[in-house]
Amino acid sequence: MARTAEAKQNIREICRIDARVFYAKSYDGASMQDIAEAVGLTKAGLYHHVGSKDRLLFEIQNYGMDILDETVLAPIKDVTDPREKLRQTIIGHIDLIVRARDQEITVILHENRSLSGPLRKKLNARKRGYIEYLVDLIGRVQEQSAKPPQISPRLAAFALLGMINWLYQWYRTSGPITQSDIAQYYTDFFFRGLLGTI
Amino acid sequence: MARTAEAKQNIREICRIDARVFYAKSYDGASMQDIAEAVGLTKAGLYHHVGSKDRLLFEIQNYGMDILDETVLAPIKDVTDPREKLRQTIIGHIDLIVRARDQEITVILHENRSLSGPLRKKLNARKRGYIEYLVDLIGRVQEQSAKPPQISPRLAAFALLGMINWLYQWYRTSGPITQSDIAQYYTDFFFRGLLGTI
Repeated sequence: MARTAEAKQNIREICRIDARVFYAKSYDGASMQDIAEAVGLTKAGLYHHVGSKDRLLFEIQNYGMDILDETVLAPIKDVTDPREKLRQTIIGHIDLIVRARDQEITVILHENRSLSGPLRKKLNARKRGYIEYLVDLIGRVQEQSAKPPQISPRLAAFALLGMINWLYQWYRTSGPITQSDIAQYYTDFFFRGLLGTI
Repeated sequence: MARTAEAKQNIREICRIDARVFYAKSYDGASMQDIAEAVGLTKAGLYHHVGSKDRLLFEIQNYGMDILDETVLAPIKDVTDPREKLRQTIIGHIDLIVRARDQEITVILHENRSLSGPLRKKLNARKRGYIEYLVDLIGRVQEQSAKPPQISPRLAAFALLGMINWLYQWYRTSGPITQSDIAQYYTDFFFRGLLGTI
C-alpha cells in the first residue's frame, strides 16, 4: 500500500528511535513493550503503525537503504565520469557510516541476521542492487584507465565495501583522524589498489 | 587459575558448540538451558565448567583470538622479512575468516557487543595487540620500500582488517571464487594500495 508523506515520516521517526532500542538491547533482547514505550505508543498503537517486530526490523533496515539512496546516490546521479562518480560514492558512503546520527541503523543493517522469508529477500535485493552499481562503476573506471584490469570489479567492490563498512567498528569522529582525512586516504588507497597508480 | 590441558580442551569443545547456539539464537535469545543442553550438560554442570553466560561468551571470543595466535601468527613467528611476513599474515587471516569450521566464532568475535566490564577490557586488549602487530609490520614494509609513505600504517591496517573481516558477509567457499584467488587478489590489492606498485 502507498503511504502518505506523513505516514512515511512517522515510520521513519519510529525507525530511528527503535533502532537505538535494538542496538542497546539486541533484537532478541528488546520486548514489544520496550519498543512501543520508546516511541510513546501502546503495543496496539505500534502494531497499527508497523505491524510485527520483524516488520519493524525490516522497516529499519529498509530505511538504512533509503538513506543510502537519498543522501549518497541521488545527489550524484547526473555525474557522468565514472572515476568522479566512484570517488563521490566512496566519500558519501563513508559519510553515511561515520555519521553519528544514524550509527545504530548502520549497525543493524550490517549485523542483523534475524530477518527471514520475503522480507529478507526484499532487503537482500536492495543490497545487491548497490553492489551491482559499484561493480559496474568500477568496471568502467578500469576501462577508462586503458590498463589491463588487475582485479575483478566484483572483488574490488567487496574490498571497498569491507574497508568502508568496517569503519563503524573502530572509527570515532571524536578521535584524532578527521572524516575528510579518512575519505581522502581511503579513496586514494582504493584507486591505487584498483589501478596501481592514481 | 591455570587450567590443565584436558580442561582447556573441554572448554574449547564447549565454545565451539555453544558458538553455534549463540549464532543461531543470538546471545540474548539463547537461554542457559539451550546452552547447557547443546553440550550435554545440566545447567549446574555448565556453570562448573565455564561459570556464567557472559563468561561463556568471553571464553568463545577469547578462543577466537587463540585460534588467530595459534594458526596464523605462531607458524610465521620466525619469518623476518616484513613484506613476506605481512603477506603470510594476510593469507592466514583470510583462511581463518573463510574457514567454515569456525565461522560462528568469527561472527561472534566481530559482532558481539554484549561483553562488559573487565572481560570486555581483556578481550579488547587482545584485539588491540593484533592491530599493533599489523601497524608495526605495515610501517616496516613502507620503510623497506624506500618510497615516501602514502597512507599511515594505522589507516592501512584498518583498511586491511575491513577487507578481510568483511569476507564473512559475502564470501562462500562453495561459490565461484576460490580461496587462493581471494588471497592472491586481496594481497596484491593491499600492497598496491599501500605502496602504489607491487
